[in-house]
Amino acid sequence: MQKIIILIHCEDQKGIIAAVTDFILRVQGNIIYIDQHVDVEQGVFFMRLECELTNKNSNLEVIKNVFQQTIATDFNMSWEFYMKEQKPRMALFVSKYDHCLYDILGRYSAGELALEIPLIISNHEDLKSVAERFSIPFHYVPFTKEIKEEGEKTQLDLLEQYEIDFIVLARYMQIITPNLVAKYKNNIINIHHSFLPAFPGAKPYHSAFERGVKIIGATSHYVTEGLDEGPIIEQDIARVSHSHSIEDFIMKGRDLERMVLARAVKIHAERKVMVYDNKTVVFT
Amino acid sequence: MQKIIILIHCEDQKGIIAAVTDFILRVQGNIIYIDQHVDVEQGVFFMRLECELTNKNSNLEVIKNVFQQTIATDFNMSWEFYMKEQKPRMALFVSKYDHCLYDILGRYSAGELALEIPLIISNHEDLKSVAERFSIPFHYVPFTKEIKEEGEKTQLDLLEQYEIDFIVLARYMQIITPNLVAKYKNNIINIHHSFLPAFPGAKPYHSAFERGVKIIGATSHYVTEGLDEGPIIEQDIARVSHSHSIEDFIMKGRDLERMVLARAVKIHAERKVMVYDNKTVVFT
Amino acid sequence: MQKIIILIHCEDQKGIIAAVTDFILRVQGNIIYIDQHVDVEQGVFFMRLECELTNKNSNLEVIKNVFQQTIATDFNMSWEFYMKEQKPRMALFVSKYDHCLYDILGRYSAGELALEIPLIISNHEDLKSVAERFSIPFHYVPFTKEIKEEGEKTQLDLLEQYEIDFIVLARYMQIITPNLVAKYKNNIINIHHSFLPAFPGAKPYHSAFERGVKIIGATSHYVTEGLDEGPIIEQDIARVSHSHSIEDFIMKGRDLERMVLARAVKIHAERKVMVYDNKTVVFT
Amino acid sequence: MQKIIILIHCEDQKGIIAAVTDFILRVQGNIIYIDQHVDVEQGVFFMRLECELTNKNSNLEVIKNVFQQTIATDFNMSWEFYMKEQKPRMALFVSKYDHCLYDILGRYSAGELALEIPLIISNHEDLKSVAERFSIPFHYVPFTKEIKEEGEKTQLDLLEQYEIDFIVLARYMQIITPNLVAKYKNNIINIHHSFLPAFPGAKPYHSAFERGVKIIGATSHYVTEGLDEGPIIEQDIARVSHSHSIEDFIMKGRDLERMVLARAVKIHAERKVMVYDNKTVVFT
Repeated sequence: MQKIIILIHCEDQKGIIAAVTDFILRVQGNIIYIDQHVDVEQGVFFMRLECELTNKNSNLEVIKNVFQQTIATDFNMSWEFYMKEQKPRMALFVSKYDHCLYDILGRYSAGELALEIPLIISNHEDLKSVAERFSIPFHYVPFTKEIKEEGEKTQLDLLEQYEIDFIVLARYMQIITPNLVAKYKNNIINIHHSFLPAFPGAKPYHSAFERGVKIIGATSHYVTEGLDEGPIIEQDIARVSHSHSIEDFIMKGRDLERMVLARAVKIHAERKVMVYDNKTVVFT
Repeated sequence: MQKIIILIHCEDQKGIIAAVTDFILRVQGNIIYIDQHVDVEQGVFFMRLECELTNKNSNLEVIKNVFQQTIATDFNMSWEFYMKEQKPRMALFVSKYDHCLYDILGRYSAGELALEIPLIISNHEDLKSVAERFSIPFHYVPFTKEIKEEGEKTQLDLLEQYEIDFIVLARYMQIITPNLVAKYKNNIINIHHSFLPAFPGAKPYHSAFERGVKIIGATSHYVTEGLDEGPIIEQDIARVSHSHSIEDFIMKGRDLERMVLARAVKIHAERKVMVYDNKTVVFT
Repeated sequence: MQKIIILIHCEDQKGIIAAVTDFILRVQGNIIYIDQHVDVEQGVFFMRLECELTNKNSNLEVIKNVFQQTIATDFNMSWEFYMKEQKPRMALFVSKYDHCLYDILGRYSAGELALEIPLIISNHEDLKSVAERFSIPFHYVPFTKEIKEEGEKTQLDLLEQYEIDFIVLARYMQIITPNLVAKYKNNIINIHHSFLPAFPGAKPYHSAFERGVKIIGATSHYVTEGLDEGPIIEQDIARVSHSHSIEDFIMKGRDLERMVLARAVKIHAERKVMVYDNKTVVFT
Repeated sequence: MQKIIILIHCEDQKGIIAAVTDFILRVQGNIIYIDQHVDVEQGVFFMRLECELTNKNSNLEVIKNVFQQTIATDFNMSWEFYMKEQKPRMALFVSKYDHCLYDILGRYSAGELALEIPLIISNHEDLKSVAERFSIPFHYVPFTKEIKEEGEKTQLDLLEQYEIDFIVLARYMQIITPNLVAKYKNNIINIHHSFLPAFPGAKPYHSAFERGVKIIGATSHYVTEGLDEGPIIEQDIARVSHSHSIEDFIMKGRDLERMVLARAVKIHAERKVMVYDNKTVVFT
């Protein structure tokens, strides 16, 4: 049986749920999961639905057409249909830190992530051997202010060549160009090593130590043009005390970064995240 | 506008959501909140729905009748309708420990709990003064093995007299009789001072200390005939270390007990908890 | 037996621990608890020590004199000796929010706090009835920009009259004057309803909601002249999601505020907090 | 400069700290870290101390001799001295689950663990390729009830050949023989996939699901003869709800297992764990 995932958002109106669930019924779909959310302030309706098509002869393209011409038009919906078994293709961008890279590749190899990793891009050659251990193509793409345009072009070419759906910055330490941000809107995931919006920018652990906080955090968010200002996907924290040095903060932070990035990647790949108004709706 | 809460459970079948949301639409209801759950193993469907009746002349009794005769019959549903503004009436049972009592009465006085507390029952007179501070009727009902039947009768009479909907055992240290359990099925909330099923029964902090655990917990559950075996509503934990004495465990535990019991009481009063197969479905 | 608490800080040097523990031995003290910390960056040594004086005829004043003239002079120490049974006297400052007030008075009444509360000061009359329930003197001290000087004078007079050791701002919504801050340096505890340094100032829950964070927090800190910039004593967090409204943030926040403030008050009263370089060393 | 770690435990007596810190002073040691604990119930004193020997000509063997003949004898101490740079040698035992293996090898490769991993032993051949990716010798040692004695002998021979200091069972699914337990007392670390003492033995996630808990956990402990009854090193938990299936419990549990085992391994390798009376004292 085909399993499909449907994401919908539109202006909040009466009767949406009834209409959608009735539609699923009529195309012989069996709802396995359904969740919805209304942003009351903005008046926006969100829905995520998983269903099995019990009729083996169902034609997804036909279903999508009918959906568009009937309900989607009636309610003026934005929507996406995904085949569940079709895994998104992810590019990893890294620099020199290897802890997030090892963690993601370990989870990937252990079969925990519903995605493909056909490509690793780095602005340094340091982590090539890690990529080789896991038999994943590694491309060294130098990137500095001076060669920004060349760097961007090489990146874009590789992303196209490998048919990449989304990008994960696993402690990648260079800027992402506006062109890339625009092309992969809501599809570039970054891990920031602080509890945003506290301590944006560089050296957040040092700032946290300086401030004497009792809790440190990490934040995974979609990349937008504003530094560390994109929609937050996931956050987590760890307790610290006066007895911890900056090195301890950093070491505890590595665990947070690993965990928070892995969770964000997982739910993004499973199409559980919707973005609206610089916020995320996460259906888990 | 009338706000109503609807709880439904029935065998899982195709078309339930469409039918229910369509029904709401037809009675001019505006869905504010809807959540559902399917217990795949047991094949049971659960739904919680909040809606406003936009027609001021809506007659709830009529709506309930129609609902029963149409959808509820079609799908063989168990269901409950509540007026949102009608607060449930809660009896507090206490003994000598006062921390949960102070916490609940403080929250109640601060307007955080959607319920009424018309009655406190205790098997000791110690906490009478606390009840008086908050101007709540306090009834001393002695209860021991020897006078179990008298005790139970007095309790049942008081519960009836004060029209009590549900009971909260705020560290009440006596058994609840099977008659009371039966009469208030899924309506007696207890707080157990351990992370159930670890350390059921008496002196759990001492057992936890003895075992050298690194985390202690508290568990709020509905009372059933089996000791500490009822459906779990809420749990939480706190870290401990070798440096903590039994007294520290107990003090940290008091915070857990307060918090966990308060959360369980709140969600129960807001009709967010459904019970099935000795488990809870909590819609929050 | 007399129990005493000793707090020491000085420049880090060799031999401090040996000297101090040897001193305790010589005055027939039995060490019950000892903890120390070295701020490596600043080169500062901190110690907290609890001991019983096993000789009933020990004279604390004599011991303090000898300590000052020997070890404290040798190592150029700042130090404090407290009798453990001598509870500090705390003034509560409140405005209109009552949840932290109820929580602290409940804990106080339940015997969980090693302190006295002889005085509640408020710039509004709303919470007078709460103070009366707990039989604690309540003083209404109006305070606005216009009558700042009168307000401050009345506050200072009351604090002196009631022999107050430290002040707790339990959601007190007015500024504290520089004179008060100076007089009660490191002895005024505030609860800020965000995870500082994120969202300082007014309406932090609204800002957090706006930013789409996945975790909210509360921070207890000592009041200094800079708004929300004082040394952090304690912080805690709660998870939120897209499904939570601002009202939910606020309600979850109330629990955080209660808990974080209660913990900060408790450890301050037990003389477990030392302040240095706008940070706290918390010995727990 | 040589850095050494000293672990001490003995009957609690007056003057231990003064004696030890004075000793360090006399051998020209500079204390970097010192922590102590008294188990009041059992009357046992524990201490962990890190120091630098500032005199380059210090002879550790001489220092240990003097320590034994003076203080250790006076106070009847059990003690251990370790050179900080001398990393313990760890053997990994695995079966078929690879998530903990990937996690530990990733951390090891990223330089986060102060230990050597010269050897992986498995009762299955499945994870050989993982070992090869990280270039670590992998030995397939079949083990069943029937060939228990051969299996044990091969294990013991390998452990001796590779000069193994401690063993980590990274979801190893076979029993450890009493001989092995005895030989590596307090040096075999297991990860149990529940919040012990709840749900010991097999299939804990299934039992947790059945019971309807709201929190699941994982526990790392030293292996003793009693199943899952050894001293607990570290525990952690994750929230679950009615919406999670057994598969979700297992997936969330994998994260807990990874994290809890990694922390236990780290603190054991850094000699921060002391065992007494089936409990651990963890100095962090």
